[in-house]
Amino acid sequence: MRAVQVIKYDNAPRLVDVPEPKILHPLDVVVRIGGAGVCRTDLHIIEGQWEQKSGVTLPYVLGHENAGWVHEVGSAVSDIAVGDPVILHPLVTCGLCRACRDGDDVHCARASFPGIDSDGGYAELLRTNARSVVKLDPSLQPADVAALADAGLTAYHAARKAAAALSPGDRVVVIGAGGLGHIGVQVLRALTPAEIIVVDRSAEALRLAGELGADHTVRADGSEVSAVLDLTGGSGAEAVIDFVGEGGAIEAGVAMLRRAGSYYVVGYGGVLNVSTIDIISTEINFIGNLVGSYSDLVELMVLATRGKVTLHTSAYPLAEFHQALDDLHHGKVRGRAILIP
Amino acid sequence: MRAVQVIKYDNAPRLVDVPEPKILHPLDVVVRIGGAGVCRTDLHIIEGQWEQKSGVTLPYVLGHENAGWVHEVGSAVSDIAVGDPVILHPLVTCGLCRACRDGDDVHCARASFPGIDSDGGYAELLRTNARSVVKLDPSLQPADVAALADAGLTAYHAARKAAAALSPGDRVVVIGAGGLGHIGVQVLRALTPAEIIVVDRSAEALRLAGELGADHTVRADGSEVSAVLDLTGGSGAEAVIDFVGEGGAIEAGVAMLRRAGSYYVVGYGGVLNVSTIDIISTEINFIGNLVGSYSDLVELMVLATRGKVTLHTSAYPLAEFHQALDDLHHGKVRGRAILIP
Amino acid sequence: MRAVQVIKYDNAPRLVDVPEPKILHPLDVVVRIGGAGVCRTDLHIIEGQWEQKSGVTLPYVLGHENAGWVHEVGSAVSDIAVGDPVILHPLVTCGLCRACRDGDDVHCARASFPGIDSDGGYAELLRTNARSVVKLDPSLQPADVAALADAGLTAYHAARKAAAALSPGDRVVVIGAGGLGHIGVQVLRALTPAEIIVVDRSAEALRLAGELGADHTVRADGSEVSAVLDLTGGSGAEAVIDFVGEGGAIEAGVAMLRRAGSYYVVGYGGVLNVSTIDIISTEINFIGNLVGSYSDLVELMVLATRGKVTLHTSAYPLAEFHQALDDLHHGKVRGRAILIP
Amino acid sequence: MRAVQVIKYDNAPRLVDVPEPKILHPLDVVVRIGGAGVCRTDLHIIEGQWEQKSGVTLPYVLGHENAGWVHEVGSAVSDIAVGDPVILHPLVTCGLCRACRDGDDVHCARASFPGIDSDGGYAELLRTNARSVVKLDPSLQPADVAALADAGLTAYHAARKAAAALSPGDRVVVIGAGGLGHIGVQVLRALTPAEIIVVDRSAEALRLAGELGADHTVRADGSEVSAVLDLTGGSGAEAVIDFVGEGGAIEAGVAMLRRAGSYYVVGYGGVLNVSTIDIISTEINFIGNLVGSYSDLVELMVLATRGKVTLHTSAYPLAEFHQALDDLHHGKVRGRAILIP
Repeated sequence: MRAVQVIKYDNAPRLVDVPEPKILHPLDVVVRIGGAGVCRTDLHIIEGQWEQKSGVTLPYVLGHENAGWVHEVGSAVSDIAVGDPVILHPLVTCGLCRACRDGDDVHCARASFPGIDSDGGYAELLRTNARSVVKLDPSLQPADVAALADAGLTAYHAARKAAAALSPGDRVVVIGAGGLGHIGVQVLRALTPAEIIVVDRSAEALRLAGELGADHTVRADGSEVSAVLDLTGGSGAEAVIDFVGEGGAIEAGVAMLRRAGSYYVVGYGGVLNVSTIDIISTEINFIGNLVGSYSDLVELMVLATRGKVTLHTSAYPLAEFHQALDDLHHGKVRGRAILIP
Repeated sequence: MRAVQVIKYDNAPRLVDVPEPKILHPLDVVVRIGGAGVCRTDLHIIEGQWEQKSGVTLPYVLGHENAGWVHEVGSAVSDIAVGDPVILHPLVTCGLCRACRDGDDVHCARASFPGIDSDGGYAELLRTNARSVVKLDPSLQPADVAALADAGLTAYHAARKAAAALSPGDRVVVIGAGGLGHIGVQVLRALTPAEIIVVDRSAEALRLAGELGADHTVRADGSEVSAVLDLTGGSGAEAVIDFVGEGGAIEAGVAMLRRAGSYYVVGYGGVLNVSTIDIISTEINFIGNLVGSYSDLVELMVLATRGKVTLHTSAYPLAEFHQALDDLHHGKVRGRAILIP
Repeated sequence: MRAVQVIKYDNAPRLVDVPEPKILHPLDVVVRIGGAGVCRTDLHIIEGQWEQKSGVTLPYVLGHENAGWVHEVGSAVSDIAVGDPVILHPLVTCGLCRACRDGDDVHCARASFPGIDSDGGYAELLRTNARSVVKLDPSLQPADVAALADAGLTAYHAARKAAAALSPGDRVVVIGAGGLGHIGVQVLRALTPAEIIVVDRSAEALRLAGELGADHTVRADGSEVSAVLDLTGGSGAEAVIDFVGEGGAIEAGVAMLRRAGSYYVVGYGGVLNVSTIDIISTEINFIGNLVGSYSDLVELMVLATRGKVTLHTSAYPLAEFHQALDDLHHGKVRGRAILIP
Repeated sequence: MRAVQVIKYDNAPRLVDVPEPKILHPLDVVVRIGGAGVCRTDLHIIEGQWEQKSGVTLPYVLGHENAGWVHEVGSAVSDIAVGDPVILHPLVTCGLCRACRDGDDVHCARASFPGIDSDGGYAELLRTNARSVVKLDPSLQPADVAALADAGLTAYHAARKAAAALSPGDRVVVIGAGGLGHIGVQVLRALTPAEIIVVDRSAEALRLAGELGADHTVRADGSEVSAVLDLTGGSGAEAVIDFVGEGGAIEAGVAMLRRAGSYYVVGYGGVLNVSTIDIISTEINFIGNLVGSYSDLVELMVLATRGKVTLHTSAYPLAEFHQALDDLHHGKVRGRAILIP
């Protein structure tokens, strides 16, 4: 089958012909890819930034945001059938460790991560297992939702955690209304009646956030802290979800937080730097967020099915992966780039 | 009545004769002090470090850890009677703001803080209100428990929050087994069967922690991180409660934390400095902790009544407050110094 | 002032002239009534059914669903001012007992209940205290929201509790779409993306429920259990909120419940009768619900301000209270009857 | 191998020679039985009471409380090795359904139940899978803990749920201090500082409960409700755990409950019969409890390893199963009967 492999770091990946993946274990599932999201992480992988971290042996196939149709199932797979449309949780988990048993499968002690440390979805077929496969409602097209598998799932996970602590009358600040943030706004809108305040540098991103349900939008032009304090009667917001995590976003975000409020860290790159006296005297919390669990992905698909979470995508044929990566690198992709085999 | 006032910052406080406090409001309560804890914060107040923060007008009476007997009550006070032994929550709260109504009275929008921003308990009598008064079991002496009103309550609040997330088989690290920490260990022992690992620089503090219920003690001599990792099978602990909050304690503490674990900040002085990628890739949390609520103090008194939380104290007559402050300054107090009017 | 008193049980109440209520305590608030809800409970009071339960001394003034404007405040009241529009929590609570301190003020150990055990709001003025007064957004008229003070608050409390346990993809059944139920549907719609299935005998009530946000409506004609099982893929719903609580509603409701589901009891009159083996083998729960807390009422007013919860009302001048009670008795009131002094 | 089979209902089971179970799936585990608990349910199975419910095909092997050593593992089993001492969760679960993924594996959509609907542990060997196997600490003997696999696990599950809602100063009533109840008391003692009040008809059971950590014991002789009200200052207890579930236990238990309290149903046989007005006016809850999850069993083993939960057992050689069943039937077993192959 055709697949896009990283052959050597810092070299362009190549479309090659490789053997089809086979069922090796009774719970394995082989999926025919309908769409694979092209993510900034893919650029970093190609540059070699993940070499140590993933430890993957080259060559291997890129692609960690995948959806498609079931192509073949192992002998112990009973819930899904060949032909079912599916989206794939990014991790292939064991189902046996404490984390998996407690619904916290993101911290599985033995997970693999297709597209990162094993063959991914820039290909016609991909092998995963039954624990990673979420059946799609017939109304959803795999290529339309593929990018929800990782970027969307991360936004969902953080927004859901924040929403669980919010009541009517509370305020939640979303910092960054880009790829993840604009999904976060939609998820918050679906899960909580709390007031949503979106902060971004881009007027265009703020306009979109407003359409997606933000109650207030604030330009990040240096006056954003005082703008948020004004919008919250001077007290600050009960929750801040930071999809940026670098630059001045963190300092500004902490200053927007109310006493006893919680700061959800999603974006990364910068450093959280806060005096312990400021943490204890206002009793604020910092909550880490990784990608969501399998059950989070199931719930996100429910929202997608009902049209409560939508995503702008630009489709590229698999053979034009160079163009997709290049457009992403140069900021030319409208919405999320999706490779279609 | 006799009372110890700060007359001028950076000058020794003085024992003076002042008018007795009166009932001004139907919910007011005047308490005859049985014991007032002498706290390091009192030294800082005398030095003037709290001048801006508290905004108190000099002269005023020190003492924010108070217990005694009810001396007089306002017309609307019905639950307690003259002569009842009581301990005082450090804050005098309004009972009307959202925080008070939700049991989170520490964040009361209109609290006053006797001994910090109004007259405190280095005196024969103190005015507070019915919202701050916890009746003591007859088996408890006010002078024996006074220091639980603030230091003990802070330790209780953090330990209780941590215990609520711990299950049998989990591990909790207590950093610092001094004044607050050794109460924290007793509270954890009462509230959770999780394994308690105590880290301190002092062998003597660790010995005491062992007697109070720590399962493991670890000397903070530079090898503490690897010692804790060894004790937790390499994974780190589900919770770290940091009663130090400065020096190398924070860096070490974060390194002891398991994936998805929580770090409870109680001590302060230093800076929390963590890369956002380290927060999100392991999905860890940092939880701020201030003093406990009124209900926390009620619960702590239940544990004290049952002998599950005990405190070493050294009594000084009120007139010898100089000696008590001096001994505290020079590290000569055994346990907690208590002024007895 | 004019007020409607019960003079003698089983006799028609009378519009009489009584002295105006005075401020007796620094936290007291006297409210000029803008609207008082006329409730079925008022009919029962007049018939004498509450004589033992309330122990009120006749004559006294009816009316337990009240809203209006602040007329006079005690010396310790600082958050609200004369002229402010307000809605009143039905209970006047102490702020000192454990329940009040923990945000569970409905279980206040010393509450009074104006309109039930003391003078209520079928009058020009009513005395309550600062703990019961919720300031209204200027966009809300007291007469329009008065009935949310008790009936609406009860529905909010139960729906909020249920929503906290619901995720996208879950299903909640609302039994009874009348006075409380149709508010419950609006609250659920605001708080959760779970699917809402409404069951009622009345096609008209179901039509309204559909307009207010129900995803499915089911006629209670004997086939409702199988209809709900069909809508839930045979498994039953994660939650059932029963606003009826009598007749066959309970048996039917329990049969609609999924394994590990929760049944919220709100309506009353009947008997819950379930074999313990049925409770343990499916591990289901029954959750009692009384009226909501002060904070619940604050949150409900947020939803009302945003237009997410609306109420149909029919206004009657205070002097026409006979007509209002009579219309209610004969089922002729459209929406909720409100007396306007 | 030797195994005790039910050949025909209402006939005595027989010790027969059957083929050894084989590994059929990569996650299968065959366990050499070290001890199998003899349970009242086994008597009911023999009498044919479970014929319809289990649908098992005769002949089959009894025994649903099993512990032993790993004998053989499937190719995908990596956490445990041949020779490891283990206790078996009673259900063999799928790891794929929503319940399994959320840590609620007791409600697995595809579970089997060895000893009930497939071959159990009255045998030398038993086949289960890796999701059901909990490794034992070397200090624990399989025969000593086998009965914790089901009876103990049920008590743990209910007591843990109750403990999570209890604070210092709260009171929990345990109704029935027999097989499950005396484990429940030990679990409560390990998990909560709340006061434990044990109610039973037997003075001997109450004496044991006192030794195991009950703070108060109350004879169920008709005065138990007033005795509990006296012990709780007239208010009733925050929680009641009912291990009896029949006879007058339920009515008495509900009368012991405080406003807003929760009643945990564990024992069964009787009917819960409560007016809905009594449920809503005091806002009480009824919480169903089935057996615990895999994670519950892991936690219970932690408590057993530390000696916080112990069990009296009487060992019988497998060949003497008749005697064990007979002794159980006639109430002659001291503690729990365990068959040793």
